[in-house]
Amino acid sequence: MELWYIEEQTENIRFSVKVKRHFYTETSDFQQIDFFESYELGKFFSLDGIIMLTEKDEFVYHEMITHVALATNPSIKNVLVIGGGDGGTVRELTRYPHIEKIDMVEIDEMVVRTCKQFLPLTASKLDDERVTIYHEDGLKYIQGVRDAYDLIIVDSTDPIGPGEGLFTLLFYENCFKALKEDGILVNQHESPYYEKQAIEMRRAHQKIKKLFPISKVFQAHIPTYESGHWLFGFASKKYHPIDDFNKEKWESFKLKTKYYNPDLHLGCFALPTYVKEMLESC
Amino acid sequence: MELWYIEEQTENIRFSVKVKRHFYTETSDFQQIDFFESYELGKFFSLDGIIMLTEKDEFVYHEMITHVALATNPSIKNVLVIGGGDGGTVRELTRYPHIEKIDMVEIDEMVVRTCKQFLPLTASKLDDERVTIYHEDGLKYIQGVRDAYDLIIVDSTDPIGPGEGLFTLLFYENCFKALKEDGILVNQHESPYYEKQAIEMRRAHQKIKKLFPISKVFQAHIPTYESGHWLFGFASKKYHPIDDFNKEKWESFKLKTKYYNPDLHLGCFALPTYVKEMLESC
Repeated sequence: MELWYIEEQTENIRFSVKVKRHFYTETSDFQQIDFFESYELGKFFSLDGIIMLTEKDEFVYHEMITHVALATNPSIKNVLVIGGGDGGTVRELTRYPHIEKIDMVEIDEMVVRTCKQFLPLTASKLDDERVTIYHEDGLKYIQGVRDAYDLIIVDSTDPIGPGEGLFTLLFYENCFKALKEDGILVNQHESPYYEKQAIEMRRAHQKIKKLFPISKVFQAHIPTYESGHWLFGFASKKYHPIDDFNKEKWESFKLKTKYYNPDLHLGCFALPTYVKEMLESC
Repeated sequence: MELWYIEEQTENIRFSVKVKRHFYTETSDFQQIDFFESYELGKFFSLDGIIMLTEKDEFVYHEMITHVALATNPSIKNVLVIGGGDGGTVRELTRYPHIEKIDMVEIDEMVVRTCKQFLPLTASKLDDERVTIYHEDGLKYIQGVRDAYDLIIVDSTDPIGPGEGLFTLLFYENCFKALKEDGILVNQHESPYYEKQAIEMRRAHQKIKKLFPISKVFQAHIPTYESGHWLFGFASKKYHPIDDFNKEKWESFKLKTKYYNPDLHLGCFALPTYVKEMLESC
């Protein structure tokens, strides 16, 4: 007997993973949550049938969504993570001793609870004393917050289901207001390759670049996400991710990373021509 | 009725493409050749059940396997392509008017013939007057060739089946001898992500770096190859792909590209830490 997890990455493309067992399935108030143990990718979990992370490649996503910002402004002290219930983003943030406060707003308590139970690799630092978890809608949480954070990381699902509000203009406007005058917004920015994700990528960029004086996009290889070509947004009121890149300071932290490094910090902003053109035409 | 092409990227990972029709299948003296028309990726073809190219993403592979070398030494005049029967690499090379001679050694005449028939997008320049096609084993062809080429591009299949000899030390030694004193070798270098391809990637690098004074690796996003994270080798007797990068000269050619660009030339050599460590430990 063989058991295969099959994901519809588009209507016409499927990605399949041979699994040892499907050991958890539950529907929360927001989405269907499933955990699997696989032969090739370690444990992984999906929300509404989309892989959120696998033990094999989660380091790419979580390193890239945090360290690019921290190496641009190494003085970041107050961070807001929206989404990120698996804890991987918080894990990377807690590696900086000088970060004082990490607020995480994850709408779905069940995601946090199950990740703590099944994925200690990512969730183990959610109990760090600097971390406060709010089980609220990120869109609501941020309304009325002013001048409070050095960094906001939007570690959301795709803009379907509970993640939808986190791709709206209203949300990005509120992020702008919630950031300090030198604040940085990093968001998962979908993929440029299949039309299904590229549409969302363009929509997000169009909104963010209207609001922030500096708005750049960087890329990473995340094999278990659609097409493996994934983007992140870097938007800022003051810091430019390349001109203000503080390599020496970041290296002084002596963090051991598996994907991110100072050369790649510069390299990841060098986008393919077709992606640049998509972003410029937004 | 639905028709799906299903590729085993590893024993435990499958990539599936919904197809409109499977319009050609034949077994040559060397391998099984299949052509498909798909909904998402245009036409594509496979050799022994592995996708070689799709109309949607072939530009990534073919631009990266040629332009990085041509922008490092823009005076390249004599080129040898080993493999590359689909013609995509030759197509990119013929865009440089100053290239005088392109020899292509493709063992399987049937690949060339079917690509000319079904994939004019890639094969249309195989009739360029500067191109000579030899239907021979690349390993044999190159024996005894001395000091003849400015650039050798190894556009091979994986090291299983007819491509196997193109990953041997003997072959790389002969490439070294067949290159002029300032010659460059570019080869498709497999993927670092799944163990199956990473083993071959390390084996190839280990051999090449013993022979060439300069041996670097660069990366690209090729969504329809295993993991989407693909590597190329750049080995050279004289030119360093970053220190000798001739941006101004390359820009003067005014080539319109969809993936490659001068910023990305520099960025694509910035590898993830885990890949750097794999290569350094070879």
